[in-house]
Amino acid sequence: MPELRKDPVLGRWIIISKERSKRPTDFIVEEPRVIEGGFCPLCPGNEKTTPNEVLVFGREPILPPNSAGWKLRVVPNKFPALVIEGDLEKQAEGLYDRMNGIGAHEVIIESPNHEDRFSFLSQEQMLFVFRAFRNRILDLAHDKRFQYVMVFKNYGRPAGASLEHPHSQLVALPILPRMVISELDGALSYYKYKDRCIFCDIIRQEIQQDVRLVCQNSHFVTLSPFAPRSPFEMWIMPKEHSSSYTEQSEQSLAALVDIFSESLQRLDACIPNVPYNFVLHTQPLRSQPLDHFHWHFEIVPKLTSIAGFEWGSGFYINPMPPEDTCTYLKEAM
Amino acid sequence: MPELRKDPVLGRWIIISKERSKRPTDFIVEEPRVIEGGFCPLCPGNEKTTPNEVLVFGREPILPPNSAGWKLRVVPNKFPALVIEGDLEKQAEGLYDRMNGIGAHEVIIESPNHEDRFSFLSQEQMLFVFRAFRNRILDLAHDKRFQYVMVFKNYGRPAGASLEHPHSQLVALPILPRMVISELDGALSYYKYKDRCIFCDIIRQEIQQDVRLVCQNSHFVTLSPFAPRSPFEMWIMPKEHSSSYTEQSEQSLAALVDIFSESLQRLDACIPNVPYNFVLHTQPLRSQPLDHFHWHFEIVPKLTSIAGFEWGSGFYINPMPPEDTCTYLKEAM
Repeated sequence: MPELRKDPVLGRWIIISKERSKRPTDFIVEEPRVIEGGFCPLCPGNEKTTPNEVLVFGREPILPPNSAGWKLRVVPNKFPALVIEGDLEKQAEGLYDRMNGIGAHEVIIESPNHEDRFSFLSQEQMLFVFRAFRNRILDLAHDKRFQYVMVFKNYGRPAGASLEHPHSQLVALPILPRMVISELDGALSYYKYKDRCIFCDIIRQEIQQDVRLVCQNSHFVTLSPFAPRSPFEMWIMPKEHSSSYTEQSEQSLAALVDIFSESLQRLDACIPNVPYNFVLHTQPLRSQPLDHFHWHFEIVPKLTSIAGFEWGSGFYINPMPPEDTCTYLKEAM
Repeated sequence: MPELRKDPVLGRWIIISKERSKRPTDFIVEEPRVIEGGFCPLCPGNEKTTPNEVLVFGREPILPPNSAGWKLRVVPNKFPALVIEGDLEKQAEGLYDRMNGIGAHEVIIESPNHEDRFSFLSQEQMLFVFRAFRNRILDLAHDKRFQYVMVFKNYGRPAGASLEHPHSQLVALPILPRMVISELDGALSYYKYKDRCIFCDIIRQEIQQDVRLVCQNSHFVTLSPFAPRSPFEMWIMPKEHSSSYTEQSEQSLAALVDIFSESLQRLDACIPNVPYNFVLHTQPLRSQPLDHFHWHFEIVPKLTSIAGFEWGSGFYINPMPPEDTCTYLKEAM
């Protein structure tokens, strides 16, 4: 059973995932190895090598579960950081806090084609992905043990991907992560002071200034944020205020597909095949709609490394102003 | 002039260091390149290739500054993230905040010998390093623009080192970093509740439990922390309460040398030549002694990668419990 432990000073939670444990010398390779060529557990025909699917799109209803013929599958992670079965059993150990590592860890297999890349998926296929995010969050919200679903993608080996086949992931958590709390708190402070959503204000200012606005459509904007952690960081935000990703209309999802493709293709035109992470920022599960929070995606290319200074300070050093990034991205296509 | 920018939601500061700017395709190498062999700007004889030294140990007084014959030198970084000259000029841009990137960025050249490694420095030589940290913090505290001095080391290319020659770094900052604020706040909450320093309580509990205590001497303990971000993370803490690194006696500095060498050599015996970062955690400049904060070093080996989940959540996934780490470290020598 994995374990959740809290740093008593910072309140930072750590997952001790002992199932993955190794001897000291097994750690010498820093980056996860991507298995190139060879057997792929996510490819059609190998469905039996993954845990049973929890969601599927595009397979004929006459075919059995966990068979080929699908367009998208969601399966539990075979090596989960957290496990679905059990109780939290919160306990103290002297001044420390721990609980069982209960949660869900799922893999969204974005396409049956091993060679596909998320940035260049067809509209139909990318729409399946964004629908899968929505459906899985809504389903996991029924489990009262969970407070948050973190949806993210690691693309490329330096960004932490350990499988080549196009996929994203989600982790359902029994506690609100520190970063989510900080973001909600920061947004709430602003709201209390100004009576407006800070993200709505950011969008208004960015459209007006037009120096960090990469692209926009009827429903969304893509920005180079004012204080980016990395060159070419991008935020994709709905123009209309909404705190929950799952509340989107089908029309909005289609517009999201358009702007997400365009943004990633602009990035790819600037730095071909750059590794990146994206993370969905949305409200906690079962929360009422929030006037002060605004859901969005943050895309962070993996271009700089986190060293001692960043560890100690929480500062990031970024060698390119977002206004320059934005110019490159706008001129890219 | 570099620029400091604040994320308006999280309060996270970013340094935009445009002097280091590049075109998009210059970013494709993720890790900084270590120049192996060839010219080393930190080696004796090449003193003129660095900015003028601000501190030197071991050179005969008869010799001129910036000549050979030294045992340790501190020089300004030739490519600083922040610059020493100018005013902060804090300003708003709509809802955003920015200021000039004023600060100091210095390199502590730990030994004249290019081949030396910090973990295996002689006692005398390592004592020079720890004295240099103290002297530079005390000196930079005279500059009223600075609020904090972050002292850190990146060892090995995956940990962010871009030069092979043994060195550590410091950055003097005009604002308190978010991580320092969080640590001070967390420690203060505990103090208000218990009227005791949380770090003192941690040390007491760890000595009593003896499952995460790697080693100790008259003045210090080395722990595997309860909620470590990485396997083999270690914290080195003074047994006697003190909030400021610079308040140490010479006797304490000598004991620090002993336990630091021992701890790093134990780590090296477990995972030979592992890349790591260490960061000094100490009180803000010109602060009164704090009853709730306790200075210490945190050593984080670079063994796992930061991917989407960590970006989004601030959670870390660690595949080895610190009790196991501690057993390996204890048995290593």
